[in-house]
Amino acid sequence: MKNRLSRHFFGIIRSLTLYFVFTLSPVVHAQTKAPDADAVFIDRIYDQSLTNGRCYPWLEHLCLQIGHRLSGSPSAAKAVEWSKSMLDTMGLDSVWLQPCMVPHWVRGKPEQVRVIGSKKSSSFPLAALALGGSIGGNVEAEVVEVDTWEQLEQLGVAGKLKGKIAFYNRPMDATKIRTFEAYGGCVDQRAGGASKAAKYGAVAVLVRSMTLRLDDFPHTGSMHYDSAYTLIPAAAISTVAAEKLSQILREQGHAKVSIQLNCMTLPDEPSFNVIGEIRGTERPNDIIIVGGHLDSWDIGQGAHDDGAGVMQSMDVIHILKTLGYRPRHTIRCVLFMNEENGLRGGKAYAMEAKRKGEFPLTSIETDAGGFTPRGFGFEGEEAVFANFYQKVAAFEPLFEPYGLKFTKGGSGADIGPLKSQKGLLSGYSPDSQRYFDYHHAQTDTFDKVNKRELELGTASMAALIYLIDKYGL
Amino acid sequence: MKNRLSRHFFGIIRSLTLYFVFTLSPVVHAQTKAPDADAVFIDRIYDQSLTNGRCYPWLEHLCLQIGHRLSGSPSAAKAVEWSKSMLDTMGLDSVWLQPCMVPHWVRGKPEQVRVIGSKKSSSFPLAALALGGSIGGNVEAEVVEVDTWEQLEQLGVAGKLKGKIAFYNRPMDATKIRTFEAYGGCVDQRAGGASKAAKYGAVAVLVRSMTLRLDDFPHTGSMHYDSAYTLIPAAAISTVAAEKLSQILREQGHAKVSIQLNCMTLPDEPSFNVIGEIRGTERPNDIIIVGGHLDSWDIGQGAHDDGAGVMQSMDVIHILKTLGYRPRHTIRCVLFMNEENGLRGGKAYAMEAKRKGEFPLTSIETDAGGFTPRGFGFEGEEAVFANFYQKVAAFEPLFEPYGLKFTKGGSGADIGPLKSQKGLLSGYSPDSQRYFDYHHAQTDTFDKVNKRELELGTASMAALIYLIDKYGL
Repeated sequence: MKNRLSRHFFGIIRSLTLYFVFTLSPVVHAQTKAPDADAVFIDRIYDQSLTNGRCYPWLEHLCLQIGHRLSGSPSAAKAVEWSKSMLDTMGLDSVWLQPCMVPHWVRGKPEQVRVIGSKKSSSFPLAALALGGSIGGNVEAEVVEVDTWEQLEQLGVAGKLKGKIAFYNRPMDATKIRTFEAYGGCVDQRAGGASKAAKYGAVAVLVRSMTLRLDDFPHTGSMHYDSAYTLIPAAAISTVAAEKLSQILREQGHAKVSIQLNCMTLPDEPSFNVIGEIRGTERPNDIIIVGGHLDSWDIGQGAHDDGAGVMQSMDVIHILKTLGYRPRHTIRCVLFMNEENGLRGGKAYAMEAKRKGEFPLTSIETDAGGFTPRGFGFEGEEAVFANFYQKVAAFEPLFEPYGLKFTKGGSGADIGPLKSQKGLLSGYSPDSQRYFDYHHAQTDTFDKVNKRELELGTASMAALIYLIDKYGL
Repeated sequence: MKNRLSRHFFGIIRSLTLYFVFTLSPVVHAQTKAPDADAVFIDRIYDQSLTNGRCYPWLEHLCLQIGHRLSGSPSAAKAVEWSKSMLDTMGLDSVWLQPCMVPHWVRGKPEQVRVIGSKKSSSFPLAALALGGSIGGNVEAEVVEVDTWEQLEQLGVAGKLKGKIAFYNRPMDATKIRTFEAYGGCVDQRAGGASKAAKYGAVAVLVRSMTLRLDDFPHTGSMHYDSAYTLIPAAAISTVAAEKLSQILREQGHAKVSIQLNCMTLPDEPSFNVIGEIRGTERPNDIIIVGGHLDSWDIGQGAHDDGAGVMQSMDVIHILKTLGYRPRHTIRCVLFMNEENGLRGGKAYAMEAKRKGEFPLTSIETDAGGFTPRGFGFEGEEAVFANFYQKVAAFEPLFEPYGLKFTKGGSGADIGPLKSQKGLLSGYSPDSQRYFDYHHAQTDTFDKVNKRELELGTASMAALIYLIDKYGL
C-alpha cells in the first residue's frame, strides 16, 4: 500500500513537474502569437508546412530514386525532368526549363591515394576524392606539408616544392561559432591551392577535407586552375588521413605518396534551370524568387547540399498556391543548375532576367542545409540596400515566435549574379553546426535530414515571401 | 585555352561569392564580440569547450561502455562509480555520493503485443514497450480506441470499456513549434491513462508513442497508478503500430489484441546522486548548481536523455576549473539519480540542502537533449522571481553572439524540489526539433549527438554560471 501511495505521490509530483516544464515552459521560440492578420496567415503557412508539407517526401525521392546529380550527368538530367514534372502538377501559371550549357567533369574510376612505404607491407591507402575540376594523372612523389600561404611561398622560393606533392593541412577553426566562417577560413586551399603550388614546381596537391569532424570520409568540392601555371592533379583526403600523413611527416621527416586520379573534363553539356511561377496580379514584372541548386557533387545524395533547398523552394510555392494566396508580385521558384562547379545556371538566369527587363525585387536562396531555422541574411547593392533592409527589418518581430533573426550580409551563390540588378538578396540561414559534417561527402544522405527542421525552413521562407509580397519593399 | 580562361573566370566569381557568403556573411549567431572582460572570458570558455571539451568523449564512454542505466540496475551503479571517478580526477574541492533509495522496476523478458486474427496467419505483432512502472500480466481482449478524456468518460459510463483494452491514440500536435509543448499535450495519456481506464473496467492500456515521427520504434516512459482502481498492464506501441491498429478498428469495427508484459517492481534499491564542487571563496554557502540526470530508461543508451546533460554538467565544472576560475559562490555539479521514474535523487538533494542550511542561489538543469543551444528558461518562487529575472536578464546580450535567448518559465524536474528554497531555477534549452525522435526509445544512442552542439551547450552553461557567480543575483 505504501508503495502504491508513494507511486501516486510521485505521479502528482511528476504531473506538476510536467506542468511547469511543458505548459508554463521555456518557449524559446513559441511565444504567444499576435492575433493580427499577418500573424494568423503566417501561422497557417507553418501549420500547412508541418502537417501537409511536401518537401520531405520529395527530398526522399530526389535522394533515393535519383541520387547524386553532378552537372552534365544523366542523373542531373533526370532530376531536371522529375522536378519539372512535380511543378507541373501544382497548377502554377508557368513552368519552364531555362537552358544553360554546363561543365561536364567526370570522376572516372575511383581515385587511389597511397602512402608508399619501404616495403610493400608498409604501404597503405588514404581515403581520398579527386577535387571537382581536377585533371587526372598518376603521380608518385615526396610530400611537403603546407599550413599557410606564407609557408608555401618560403618553401617555394627555397625550391623545396619542386617535384613534390604539396599537402595543405590547415584545418577549419573549431572556435568559430558559425561553421561557415570556419569554412571560409580554409576553403582557399581547396579552391586555388593547386596552381599556387604548381607555380613552385609541385606535381600534385592533397588537401585536408573541409570538415570539423575527425573521420575517414573525404569531402570533395570545386577547384580552379590559374592558366599561367602547369595543371596538376588535386585531391581531398579525409581528416583522419590528413592527421595520419602529418604524423608520418613529423615522425619520419618524409613521406612518399602515390596518387592516381582518373577524372577528366568532357565538353560542356546542355542542361537547364527548372522554374515555376505564380504570376503577380499587380506588378507581374517584379519578381520574388525562392531557389536553391538542383545539381550536387557526384557522391552521397546531395541531401543537405542542396536537395533540401530545392525541395523547400518547390514547397514554398506549393504551400502559397495551396492556401489560395494570390500574390501582387510574381513569385517564382528557381531550381538552379550547376552551382557546384560553374554557376552557369545562376548566370544564365540573371542574363535572361536582364534581357526580359524584369526587376528582381527579392531573391531568397536556401543553400545552407535543411537544418532548424535560425534566420535570414540580407544584402544588396550599396545604393539600394539600406532602404531595403530598413523595410524588411520591420518584419523581424513576426518571426520571433519561430526563433528566427535577421542579419545584414550574406545571400547565396546562385542569386549573386542578380546583385547588379538592384534587388534585395537574401540567404536563408539554418543552424550551421552539422552542415560541414556532411558537405560534399558520401555521408550527405537523406537520413541526415530531419523532417520538421526541413518543413520549418520551408514555412519561414514562405512567410517572408508573403510579407514582402503584401507590403512591397 | 578558352576553357582554361573560363575556368579562371569561374574561379574569380566563385571566390567573390565565397567572400560574400562566408566573410561578410549572415552571422545569425556570431556577431562582432564586445571587447570587455566578460565577453573575453566567455569567449575563452567557448574556445576551451570547442577545442578541449570532454563532454563528447565522456558521453561516448557512458553510452558505449556503460549503456542504458535504469534506476536500481547494475549499469546505473556502474555509471555512478565511473562518473564519480571522472570527477575525482579534476582536483575539485569535494566529490561525494549522496545516497537515496530508488524504485527498482525491471522489464523482464521482452514484451509481446499481437493483433489476433481469426486465423493464425492473420495474427501479427505490434512493436511495443511496457511503460515504466507497469505491472506485468497476460491479457487478451478487444480493443477500444480513445482519443480524448471526454470520449473515455462517455465510453466508460456506457460500459463499453469493461473487459476491454483501452487504446490511447491522441498524437503529438505537429503544429506546435516547440516540441515539448506537443509532448505536454499528450503525455497525460501515458502518465495516468491506465487507472483512468481501469476505473471503467478496462483490463489493459496501449498508448501511442510520444513522438512526432511515424516509425516503428516504441517510446516508453513513466506511468503511475491511482491506488483507488485495479492495477492493469500498460504498454506503448510505435506510431506505425498505432496507425495500423486504428486502421483495423476503422475498417473492421473491432480488433482483438494479446498483451504479455513480464515487468515487475522489486523492492527499492540504494543508489546515489554524484556530486562535485568548487568551494566559493566569499559565499561558500550560496550554491550554484549545474546538473542533469544520470539514470535513463532501460533501452537505447540514454544519449540525449540525459547522458548529454550529465556529461555537459561535469564538463562545465571541468572547464571552469581548467581555466583557473576561482568562484565567489560554490559551484556544484550534480548528477541526479532517478529522474525518470521517481525523482528520488532530486528530492534527496533538496532535503539535504535544506538540512545543511544552504541557499540554492541558482540551479541550472540540462535535460532537454544535447542539441544546438537556443537559450535558457528561468523560474522561481513568485515572491523572489521578478527580482532575480531582472538581474539575470541583464546578461542576455552577452549570449547574442552565440545565438541564445532568455525566457521566463521552465527549468527541470530534478531541481523542482528546490523551488521552495527560493533560489533561481533555470532550464538549459537546446533546439527541440529532434528530441522526441529519440526520447525513451532504442534510437537514443550516441551517434545521434553532434559533438559541437553538445560542446556549445556546455559552454553556454559555464558562461551563465560565470556571470551569476561574478555579479551575484
